[in-house]
Amino acid sequence: MKIAPLSGFPEWLPEGRIVEQQILDTLRSTFELHGFSGIETRAVEPLDQLLRKGETSKEVYTLHRLQGGDSQDAELGLHFDLTVPLARYVLENSGKLDFPFKRYQIQKVWRGERPQDGRFREFMQADVDVVGSGTLAFHHDIELPLVMVDALSKLPCPRVVVRASNRKVAQGFYEAIGLGDVVETLRIVDKLDKVGPQIVAEMLHEHVGATDEQARLALALADITGSDASVADAVRALGASSALLDEGLEELVELIEGANELIPGSVVADLKIARGLDYYTGSVFESTMIGHEDLGSVCSGGRYDSLVADGKKTYPGVGLSIGVSRIISRLISRGLVVPSRRVPTCVLVAVNDETERRHAEKTAMTLRKRGIPADVSPGSQKFGKQIRFADRRGIPYVWFTTDEGEQVKDIRSGEQTPADPATWEPAAEDLRPVLSEAS
Amino acid sequence: MKIAPLSGFPEWLPEGRIVEQQILDTLRSTFELHGFSGIETRAVEPLDQLLRKGETSKEVYTLHRLQGGDSQDAELGLHFDLTVPLARYVLENSGKLDFPFKRYQIQKVWRGERPQDGRFREFMQADVDVVGSGTLAFHHDIELPLVMVDALSKLPCPRVVVRASNRKVAQGFYEAIGLGDVVETLRIVDKLDKVGPQIVAEMLHEHVGATDEQARLALALADITGSDASVADAVRALGASSALLDEGLEELVELIEGANELIPGSVVADLKIARGLDYYTGSVFESTMIGHEDLGSVCSGGRYDSLVADGKKTYPGVGLSIGVSRIISRLISRGLVVPSRRVPTCVLVAVNDETERRHAEKTAMTLRKRGIPADVSPGSQKFGKQIRFADRRGIPYVWFTTDEGEQVKDIRSGEQTPADPATWEPAAEDLRPVLSEAS
Repeated sequence: MKIAPLSGFPEWLPEGRIVEQQILDTLRSTFELHGFSGIETRAVEPLDQLLRKGETSKEVYTLHRLQGGDSQDAELGLHFDLTVPLARYVLENSGKLDFPFKRYQIQKVWRGERPQDGRFREFMQADVDVVGSGTLAFHHDIELPLVMVDALSKLPCPRVVVRASNRKVAQGFYEAIGLGDVVETLRIVDKLDKVGPQIVAEMLHEHVGATDEQARLALALADITGSDASVADAVRALGASSALLDEGLEELVELIEGANELIPGSVVADLKIARGLDYYTGSVFESTMIGHEDLGSVCSGGRYDSLVADGKKTYPGVGLSIGVSRIISRLISRGLVVPSRRVPTCVLVAVNDETERRHAEKTAMTLRKRGIPADVSPGSQKFGKQIRFADRRGIPYVWFTTDEGEQVKDIRSGEQTPADPATWEPAAEDLRPVLSEAS
Repeated sequence: MKIAPLSGFPEWLPEGRIVEQQILDTLRSTFELHGFSGIETRAVEPLDQLLRKGETSKEVYTLHRLQGGDSQDAELGLHFDLTVPLARYVLENSGKLDFPFKRYQIQKVWRGERPQDGRFREFMQADVDVVGSGTLAFHHDIELPLVMVDALSKLPCPRVVVRASNRKVAQGFYEAIGLGDVVETLRIVDKLDKVGPQIVAEMLHEHVGATDEQARLALALADITGSDASVADAVRALGASSALLDEGLEELVELIEGANELIPGSVVADLKIARGLDYYTGSVFESTMIGHEDLGSVCSGGRYDSLVADGKKTYPGVGLSIGVSRIISRLISRGLVVPSRRVPTCVLVAVNDETERRHAEKTAMTLRKRGIPADVSPGSQKFGKQIRFADRRGIPYVWFTTDEGEQVKDIRSGEQTPADPATWEPAAEDLRPVLSEAS
């Protein structure tokens, strides 16, 4: 059998999966604390729906049945994000959902792009969105980034700062200074961190016909950051003005002030945030992990006035998505987080000899019934070897049946004490593997 | 946007997902109580590995990049089970895993087959396997079905009976009575439940050249069931004998007696269990849910002396797989299990008017910090409307800020009492949605 790891399809050893699983559990429980319902959607969508936003930049994997299929089969592709499936799910089930519909979704997505550090072909995303039927109040624009700040702050990883801007500010400003091709201007400004201001200015000249003064103003806007209403003053000081710009600034200030009143230091205004996707219509969000800015944004999203629409109704939404695999891959590959052991087992029950295996199994059953993960030694070698079996996996306790009765040994301290499987309790922190951050 | 549910790709409403998620959590926690490590493998495998067991009967979905790819890309397909990926994972990581390697894996798999009731194109499997390096003790053949019996007994579903046979018994018996084509004989006997004994006898005549007497004996073997050593006596009473048959009977009796000593009534010997797959070499398992036999087996597996091998070493294993989607689909579609509410939210914090929203949000934050799922009313309509919002979702409590201070109302009883978000506790059974079985 030929074995070839596939580039772009990350997999973890069992100890890495412990890290991943605990992170996923933390995300899930936080989303549920905030009242979000979990859903899962199928991995595939009809190809025409995957491509309807013109997302040809995301390389889609299409599916084919090896032995050919009935010609009625729609052409299917693997979803490349969790937003397109959400839109379809909302429309398909609109009569059965309660609006505003708050949903979280933690699933793998696939993109056939060239794999790079932190960029995979198969990866896990964790999305939260609120979708309204017809309308959706602005306060959800404050709620959603704070859900992510709450979730990310509980992870065993460096602090993540959420940065926000507003599409109306950018559009209103560009139009007010005479840059009519807003989408292309956004696309160019989005490259600022990568190529620097000089090249952005040159690109603005070349692609949207910007004058020196227009380019200077666009770069000056992108340079504004802050955590309060002073951000709006700084934008207005650049001299441009329009109704759309005012509306955007009002929203941005309400967002920043509201978020920081509830969780101080949670969200920073940063007017260079552009978000390439054209379906955002208001607030936009990006987030970087301190000390790991090279990973790019680990949590992004925004407001879209029309996630989806049927003949009668429009469904506006706001949501953010965490690039879970990107974060976890960094934590695992750099050894930034390690579990206290490699297996879930808390107690290894030793076997004196094979004729006594049944007794050991009953001891393990008694422990498990009380919620204590227990395994029975697969062999009945000398005790030293059975202890090494536990030690290699990080199992903290070994259970023995001795001439003096049942005993349990903490193999870290070597302390061995009489114990009854029906009443004995491990130290609370030993019950399950615990993650610790490397310093 | 055209909306078309895809046949064979089941999805649940949020309340159905609560059922599914709790079932998956129960399976996971049980597997971990038994000391199994969780892993996830990528969704794709190279096509040649997916087909190496000659599994052309399972329709594989192959993947193609929409915009074409570099020609170095291996041809990839979606995995159709979790055994092929396990074999590859073990070989790829053999130097880093501890053996015997106990792993569980709960993931979706894909098969391009014609969808039917309980048979999907995308579905969830939950597998447990123990894989040895070189050797694997027989006591794991007793351990593994009992892990599944423990897990299935905790699910909110009808009781599942695990039935076991042994490939050596069938092979030894068929060879002893002169039926040389064991694989084809197994394949025919496997149809017994579907087509009945007469047609099986005719097929044995036709396809393996069985005489009347040979067909009678094969059917007599398939008719034997029992929960103790009497099963071996019944087989021997048919007159055939061989070393392989004896070995198989010894294993089968050890399995049945061992399993039923540890969990009475857990495993029944049933000699018509054949399991079509040719890689099983000893114990084989199938399981049906009482009252839902039409679903077919919901938990199957067996012993394989060579899951995989590299040049130097063979990795034997034993494992079982639960068809989770098959069970959950039945429970949800028939309304056999319902959650106590449709959202995770335990408390809805009412909003008097929009100027007081920030206060409500702080109340919700205080509750969440204490592990109580809380949501803030999205609107500030009359209280009656906010209570109906909670009622429609099944949220048990609504929190109010009144002139007499903070109060919480149990909207089922109507009782409203003063409360402090820093100390108030809901009834324990109200903290999270609870599943109940319809009677």
